[in-house]
Amino acid sequence: MKKHNFYAGPSILPELTKQKVSEASIDFAGTGLSVMEVSHRSKEFAAVMEGAVGLVKELLHIPEGYAVLFLQGGASLQFLMAPYNLMNKKSAYLNTGSWSTKAIKEAKLFGEVVEVASSKDANFTYLPRDYKIPGDADYFHYTSNNTIFGTGFFIDPESPVPLVSDMSSDIFSRPVDVSKYDLIYAGAQKNLGPAGATLVIVKEDALGKTDRPIPTMLDYKIHIDKGSMFNTPSTIAVYGCLQTLLWLKEQGGVEAIEKVNIRKAAMMYEELNRNKLFVPNIKVEEDRSRMNVTFVMAPEYLDQEKPFLDFAISRGMIGIKGHRSVGGFRASLYNALPVESVQALIDAMKDFERKV
Amino acid sequence: MKKHNFYAGPSILPELTKQKVSEASIDFAGTGLSVMEVSHRSKEFAAVMEGAVGLVKELLHIPEGYAVLFLQGGASLQFLMAPYNLMNKKSAYLNTGSWSTKAIKEAKLFGEVVEVASSKDANFTYLPRDYKIPGDADYFHYTSNNTIFGTGFFIDPESPVPLVSDMSSDIFSRPVDVSKYDLIYAGAQKNLGPAGATLVIVKEDALGKTDRPIPTMLDYKIHIDKGSMFNTPSTIAVYGCLQTLLWLKEQGGVEAIEKVNIRKAAMMYEELNRNKLFVPNIKVEEDRSRMNVTFVMAPEYLDQEKPFLDFAISRGMIGIKGHRSVGGFRASLYNALPVESVQALIDAMKDFERKV
Repeated sequence: MKKHNFYAGPSILPELTKQKVSEASIDFAGTGLSVMEVSHRSKEFAAVMEGAVGLVKELLHIPEGYAVLFLQGGASLQFLMAPYNLMNKKSAYLNTGSWSTKAIKEAKLFGEVVEVASSKDANFTYLPRDYKIPGDADYFHYTSNNTIFGTGFFIDPESPVPLVSDMSSDIFSRPVDVSKYDLIYAGAQKNLGPAGATLVIVKEDALGKTDRPIPTMLDYKIHIDKGSMFNTPSTIAVYGCLQTLLWLKEQGGVEAIEKVNIRKAAMMYEELNRNKLFVPNIKVEEDRSRMNVTFVMAPEYLDQEKPFLDFAISRGMIGIKGHRSVGGFRASLYNALPVESVQALIDAMKDFERKV
Repeated sequence: MKKHNFYAGPSILPELTKQKVSEASIDFAGTGLSVMEVSHRSKEFAAVMEGAVGLVKELLHIPEGYAVLFLQGGASLQFLMAPYNLMNKKSAYLNTGSWSTKAIKEAKLFGEVVEVASSKDANFTYLPRDYKIPGDADYFHYTSNNTIFGTGFFIDPESPVPLVSDMSSDIFSRPVDVSKYDLIYAGAQKNLGPAGATLVIVKEDALGKTDRPIPTMLDYKIHIDKGSMFNTPSTIAVYGCLQTLLWLKEQGGVEAIEKVNIRKAAMMYEELNRNKLFVPNIKVEEDRSRMNVTFVMAPEYLDQEKPFLDFAISRGMIGIKGHRSVGGFRASLYNALPVESVQALIDAMKDFERKV
């Protein structure tokens, strides 16, 4: 049976990525060795790192003055590295969910953190719009897509101070104006590649403005100077990222994939609007994530939650159980998820509706 | 032509590991999905993590009271995490090379670091034996194998305070008495698996004794409580580690592989003793690493360095160029390197000697 992979992350990857990683696990770049067993300083792996960095710059049209890094530790380590490197005494954060909350916690180790607004009052089901960012903050941080609750930004926030964003779950799903940002970071395991690689895009001029001593491994400057090779990178994960970036370029880049993503999300939200059994978790249409569509049973069909989950699983749907903070269901529609999988889920929803 | 992989790290892995990772990159545990695209919280991946942790405990005979973690960031991040979690005001370090030096640098962010001895005076070609560890230090840190210079410990140092060790390049190559240690850490990319996973073995009682606030991602306690799943682990790398651990168990564990490692190292050092062209970098026999055999041309044959490198490469030897801090050559003889590869290198050394 065909499997439809709706996992929120690690999540579906292009067939090309899987095939190439599988091949390179045995024989990489004609070396006769696995990509896992060549030195990160070999010319063959250096070409992988260079290729991946180059494609990130190309696909996101990154202007001069920015460095692209492949680090480790995921967004969770970036929650710490961002304030370590960029915050002097004060920063501003928008709290739109679990990941923002975790980012705020780490920043508080370094000084005053102004939470400009939070949608916690409504279990993060909307994006706050009415807030003021203090002009003396070192930066304003927001989470561009909230994987757990299912909200997403499609317009860069207006800010009097430099922007910093955790784009883990929507990077490469749409164009982004990098020039507005001092820092963008993303765990790879949604639209980029295997877990274990972490993408960092940092404006070089933004660094060197705090006087605290920065531990070596947490210092962006060190990683820039060493081309992401201060220490051994997660080589097989970076190789996987390169393959996904090559695939994305073949698809026409972020501009082309955005159109597909808009279509896939629209299909899901239309069905949620139509189907009497389900209700979208996010009511504000413009706040709805294109990457993570969260939905619950309509109140009168609550007893059908488990039966629908079982039905969907029997149709090959994987990873659609909602996060415990929301309940119900979550369909993650990352770049590599084909339209056919979205249609298969919608068909299952329709067929189940007919049965009930 | 058969390739012989002498890379210092990332380095040779068992055929089993390569084959299993290759297969699981396409279809993992019968899920129909790649190991790169299943949730780390899926029961299939949870079994991988559990299996890997269990095998580490089994193969190293780890006593009760220790936690085994698979983290990210390599030993370089552990240089920071070790003092963050274990050092109150004072620690003691033995400086036996580049990695020790880097570990000392990070510890200095947290208080007084006593460098009990250093072999820097002789470019780290021996292991200091005559030193005193202060009894009021929170721990004594040493690097059990010095990948770059080619020295290695085979007996746990005597210490009045708890031991901490960076065992990146010799863990699983020989038995170790874990009960003597508060903390052992190792980047995976030598004897364990793909770069991107970092092994930590920590005595649970050793934690919670400092009052500094520890950032979440740097806090061993958090990672213990969450079973290495506080954030998304490097899933494909941990899967690779599991395969290597299974392979090691099949070989008879660390006790059996140690015998092979002793034999491989003896073959190399005997040839270095016999061959007039080469000189071992480490003169003190008991300090010679079994994992990384470093050697240079004899003074009268210095002009043969490049010709021998080319000759060896033409025979399929990969990764034998010495680190720039030592020059000459380095043959890394990790667990997965077959005796045949050591013999092939020795044959090349003999054949080249005849030509000169």
